[in-house]
Amino acid sequence: MGLKPNSALKASKTLFVLPSLFTFLLVGSQGENTAMDNVATERRAEESHRQDSANLLIFIMLLTLTILTIWLFKHRRFRFLHETGLAMIYGLLVGVILRFGVHVPRNMNNVTMNCSVNASPPTLLVNVSGRFYEYTLKGEVSTVKGHDVQDDEMLRKVTFDPEVFFNILLPPIIFHAGYSLKRRHFFRNLGSILAYAFMGTVISSFVIGLVMYGCVTLMKAVGQLGGDFFFTDCLFFGAIVSATDPVTVLAIFNELKVDVDLYALMFGESVLNDAVAIVLSSSIGAYQPAGDNSHTFDATAMIKSFGVFLGVFSGSLALGVATGVMTALVTKFTKLRDFPLLETALFFLMSWSTFLLAEACEMTGVVAVLFCGMTQAHYTFNNLSPDSQDRTKQLFELLNFLAENFIFSYMGLTLFSFQSHVFNPLFIIGAFIAVFLGRAANIYPLSFLLNLGRKNKIGSNFQHVMMFAGLRGAMTFALSIRDTATYARQMMFSTTLLIVFFTVWVCGGGTTPMLSFMSIRVGVDSDQDSSQVTVSDGTQHRNTKHESAWPFRIWYNFDNTYLKPLLTHSGPPLTATLPACCGPLARCLTSTQAYENEGHQQNDDSDELVLNDGNATMYGDVTVSTDASGTFTTNHKPLSASTMGITSEEALDQELAFGEHELVIRGTRLVLPMDDPPEPTVTLPPPPTSPPPFSDPFSDPFSDPFSDPRRNRL
Amino acid sequence: MGLKPNSALKASKTLFVLPSLFTFLLVGSQGENTAMDNVATERRAEESHRQDSANLLIFIMLLTLTILTIWLFKHRRFRFLHETGLAMIYGLLVGVILRFGVHVPRNMNNVTMNCSVNASPPTLLVNVSGRFYEYTLKGEVSTVKGHDVQDDEMLRKVTFDPEVFFNILLPPIIFHAGYSLKRRHFFRNLGSILAYAFMGTVISSFVIGLVMYGCVTLMKAVGQLGGDFFFTDCLFFGAIVSATDPVTVLAIFNELKVDVDLYALMFGESVLNDAVAIVLSSSIGAYQPAGDNSHTFDATAMIKSFGVFLGVFSGSLALGVATGVMTALVTKFTKLRDFPLLETALFFLMSWSTFLLAEACEMTGVVAVLFCGMTQAHYTFNNLSPDSQDRTKQLFELLNFLAENFIFSYMGLTLFSFQSHVFNPLFIIGAFIAVFLGRAANIYPLSFLLNLGRKNKIGSNFQHVMMFAGLRGAMTFALSIRDTATYARQMMFSTTLLIVFFTVWVCGGGTTPMLSFMSIRVGVDSDQDSSQVTVSDGTQHRNTKHESAWPFRIWYNFDNTYLKPLLTHSGPPLTATLPACCGPLARCLTSTQAYENEGHQQNDDSDELVLNDGNATMYGDVTVSTDASGTFTTNHKPLSASTMGITSEEALDQELAFGEHELVIRGTRLVLPMDDPPEPTVTLPPPPTSPPPFSDPFSDPFSDPFSDPRRNRL
Repeated sequence: MGLKPNSALKASKTLFVLPSLFTFLLVGSQGENTAMDNVATERRAEESHRQDSANLLIFIMLLTLTILTIWLFKHRRFRFLHETGLAMIYGLLVGVILRFGVHVPRNMNNVTMNCSVNASPPTLLVNVSGRFYEYTLKGEVSTVKGHDVQDDEMLRKVTFDPEVFFNILLPPIIFHAGYSLKRRHFFRNLGSILAYAFMGTVISSFVIGLVMYGCVTLMKAVGQLGGDFFFTDCLFFGAIVSATDPVTVLAIFNELKVDVDLYALMFGESVLNDAVAIVLSSSIGAYQPAGDNSHTFDATAMIKSFGVFLGVFSGSLALGVATGVMTALVTKFTKLRDFPLLETALFFLMSWSTFLLAEACEMTGVVAVLFCGMTQAHYTFNNLSPDSQDRTKQLFELLNFLAENFIFSYMGLTLFSFQSHVFNPLFIIGAFIAVFLGRAANIYPLSFLLNLGRKNKIGSNFQHVMMFAGLRGAMTFALSIRDTATYARQMMFSTTLLIVFFTVWVCGGGTTPMLSFMSIRVGVDSDQDSSQVTVSDGTQHRNTKHESAWPFRIWYNFDNTYLKPLLTHSGPPLTATLPACCGPLARCLTSTQAYENEGHQQNDDSDELVLNDGNATMYGDVTVSTDASGTFTTNHKPLSASTMGITSEEALDQELAFGEHELVIRGTRLVLPMDDPPEPTVTLPPPPTSPPPFSDPFSDPFSDPFSDPRRNRL
Repeated sequence: MGLKPNSALKASKTLFVLPSLFTFLLVGSQGENTAMDNVATERRAEESHRQDSANLLIFIMLLTLTILTIWLFKHRRFRFLHETGLAMIYGLLVGVILRFGVHVPRNMNNVTMNCSVNASPPTLLVNVSGRFYEYTLKGEVSTVKGHDVQDDEMLRKVTFDPEVFFNILLPPIIFHAGYSLKRRHFFRNLGSILAYAFMGTVISSFVIGLVMYGCVTLMKAVGQLGGDFFFTDCLFFGAIVSATDPVTVLAIFNELKVDVDLYALMFGESVLNDAVAIVLSSSIGAYQPAGDNSHTFDATAMIKSFGVFLGVFSGSLALGVATGVMTALVTKFTKLRDFPLLETALFFLMSWSTFLLAEACEMTGVVAVLFCGMTQAHYTFNNLSPDSQDRTKQLFELLNFLAENFIFSYMGLTLFSFQSHVFNPLFIIGAFIAVFLGRAANIYPLSFLLNLGRKNKIGSNFQHVMMFAGLRGAMTFALSIRDTATYARQMMFSTTLLIVFFTVWVCGGGTTPMLSFMSIRVGVDSDQDSSQVTVSDGTQHRNTKHESAWPFRIWYNFDNTYLKPLLTHSGPPLTATLPACCGPLARCLTSTQAYENEGHQQNDDSDELVLNDGNATMYGDVTVSTDASGTFTTNHKPLSASTMGITSEEALDQELAFGEHELVIRGTRLVLPMDDPPEPTVTLPPPPTSPPPFSDPFSDPFSDPFSDPRRNRL
């Protein structure tokens, strides 16, 4: 009957590494009518499909409702609850209705069959009357409580496979974060951001882990613990709740036009944070020695864990950058830009394949996608046709919006639809304290250390806001729902959910008052922030630059001289920058457009500025504006730094100062007095000619979704 | 152990209608280490996930390759193979590699466990050592052949769940077809299109069914049939292969700018065709009396089947239109247009919910989505902000492109990866003959009948092209792969695959030579087609109009006077068109913009023309062009038909004649002499003033993807 006769005999040594294929032989009663069976199976499949459609429809309706309410809030200028908080509330309401309001009629047939097996393979083959049916593992189901089976099934049905979050919903969010990164401010604060994101997250994880271990030990002592909770579990919990969410707070920051340095610190930290937390939490798994149940501290395992962390992180980073570079090369050399649809499709597919490739290589797809997004924005974006530039940014903006709101409304729903909640008051209180302490141990000591090196100090008001606005969101949720098999994980999940709710509603809603209370400058045009108006004070300005941008400076020169010309149409031709011996190769790799750029024309939006050490020459400083008819208006101002009487370093800094893509200056409702101006401000002397539209190579390709003038008609 | 003790006792009478929940009790050996088990399960799940990612990556790479080759073909102006044909070839190659090149190492563990059960429920609960795992039914697996199990598993893994086609890939394709429908030409040929799509498809299904029944009987006689093949199976086969594909041929038609009437007939037929075939094939299931294995002819069942067909079709249509209307109302009354991102998201979600709603109501989602797309384009599109108009059209264009190419490359792959192929030479030859006869029985008799009523005859060359260009594509494939459980269905699937390959490669590739051979006009600007240049010949023109547009005329007047003003910002205010008694309601429902339209301003792209019987007045004939800065350039020409010396009927026809959105006139490479001019052409006398930019309310919201000037730089 289609059985592999000897397959049971192969006692494989690699039992736990390779996927297994189990075959069940379920001998059916042959007397029944096969046609009847077929019809019945079809009907059941149809019914199941109908149910799935209805469940998905619930979410679509939820999202639609959220969108309409968001509009209403924006329309009425109500801003104490952000859209993510709103989505959660709607999710909660639907969860309550499904849990308590809807009862599935009891006239279903439950057939219980007995069978002896001792494993849960990912794929089951069931042999019914000689026909094989394939079943896939959906996950473990909690049926411990004396709950109604039918209702349980319905609730289980609206509960998505956690992998959906990692494979479908998170990638567009993270990619969009990378693609829309304000690279200029990001790179100016690169050192601090890396410190917060890497050291800070690790510190926070350990602090939270230790506090929780204390809490768990206490719970065990007072008999409040209903199952195992190991030290590794505590560390895992620390890692997942250390990921701060870039969505809610930054939307508020964006609307209020908060000080750009604070914005850059928060954004950079929370984006990289997610990447660090995901890798950290997965390498804590490697910390646990295989087959060892002691869960005690072990130095070797610790080092191994750290090695895994570094390997996975750098591997994923390299993979993401590699795909981005490949896309840049393809778009540069194929002239695909004549067909925007093909170009957009290629861009989308290449970006998605980064994620899949990383997952297939056992790297972290989310990290790869983040760096792929940054690379795409930095190189590929310059090669795209204007049409594709619009299309890609709009596409990812939409995907990001939908995924984000879906996750947040799903969070709300889970509070009631998830069936294995373990709410332990002691653990919850401990967790809130631990999260607070962990965040404090991240921000304050690191800020102190960073301020020792920074000229542009991170003020104490900045630190308080960073402390307060460390919301937990999509990544924390996704990491905690990924595995809810054990008691420890279930308790973590329930607690995490509460932490997310609290931070999004209370901290998210309180951010605007907090900014006002902390006297943070709002309504700042990003071209006029403090560190940029210090150009005339030579020493001061050079120090500021050196301090904040030194890793960036080396990179910038390399990037601008070799990488940009190689990967994009912009920049000086490689023939000019590479040594003479590489002449033929350089000619082959330089696009005709690059030569044109050297002369008169430039067809894309990226503006270049090349610094030679003694006598700086600036290449094609061009602004291109496209109007509806598709014609280009080009302003070309060939400039020489020497004629402007500034050194190359000043030129670089000026370049950093000017030329973000034009931002619509809007009236904000909340302009506060500065109690604590971070730097003495000196006015910028007017350049010899009318200020040339310098453009920053690291400027973001598009102003973020919230600076769209239409969206902000509040 | 979490078992419901009495659940097995409930012998339900509704066994086959309601979803079932089966519980397997699989008693495991409790001695094993639980932690080890957990780790092992996690590892296996990881490995399975890695494999899934790799499989998906194969498809993404395939699509990327296809895109690059499409670009190369377009770049090199090679046009004998369309992109869909290309995608199939790449799929084929990958299928060959997977089938014969890749072998999974044999060191996997296959555990076979015996268990007695006689059903295949959609959901399995497996109890392993007291923990419940949920499994879902993936489908039946053929393991009859003495094939390698591991390879089988790998091939099965790259084989998608057929429902993916129906629930994820088809909806965007069909929606896009509805959304980009050239409604002007569609409605002008509405009668003929409905005849071909409904009557034609039914005729074709029956002819193919009967021929195949003959073929099957013959096969049975000569002993070539290896299993059951009933008359209902033959009819089912007829229904699925009667669906012609709108993708490939119309892309070619579009590029060559083929005669607009031929284009409209082919497009309208093939789009509605799909809807008819899908409903027809599912109602053939209802034809088969439950529990009856005779599969013989039964008049009652036949009538029931017809009833099901009508009910499902009209229900789905109504649902799709209803969602479209709802979206129009929401976008009209909420001023969501201030936030294009929200608006686009809402539009997308509402359109998707149509599909889910229809599926949840046991209607046909694909049909609902088609009519939703048409309604959205006709009403909602006018309410959207210009930004959202661009976004939605680009979004669906991209989704359509990706889904289409995915399906076609998957088709190629299936030829080798599908494991239950039944290639029967006799059946295949019979099927090719049947498909040919079925198509002939659709086109020629119906054209003859239609020509009796039509003044603008469907020429014999048109008929031959329609006969030749009836390619089978995505819908046929999706319908045939949906159920491959029985021998009959497997044979159908294999044969269908060959029919699709043949028609796409041979008929698709031969369409250009065929057009030339049949002397079909190409390079026709859609504003200058034959029936439009007959305006001065009063009788002739009125007849043409009456003949081709009479169901449309009544509808048009109703739509224009009541529906458009109600659902969109355009048109005359309802206060002017509704009777006086409805005054308050009319005022409430008319947007302020509509009043503005009556006076001076109109803020959207839709241009209106209202016909009153005696003395026609035209409302705001306005063209709005938006430039990059977001300012509107408005040309407002209030016109009165009486001043132009034309009657209201002539005005309507003129309106049909002019004012498609501006089309870029491109040089085509293939302009052929007309042997057979369909109508005597009379030149249009110049209007009294410079020709006013009449605009057709039924004009398509955007020129189709292929008339994008950038895309057509061939």
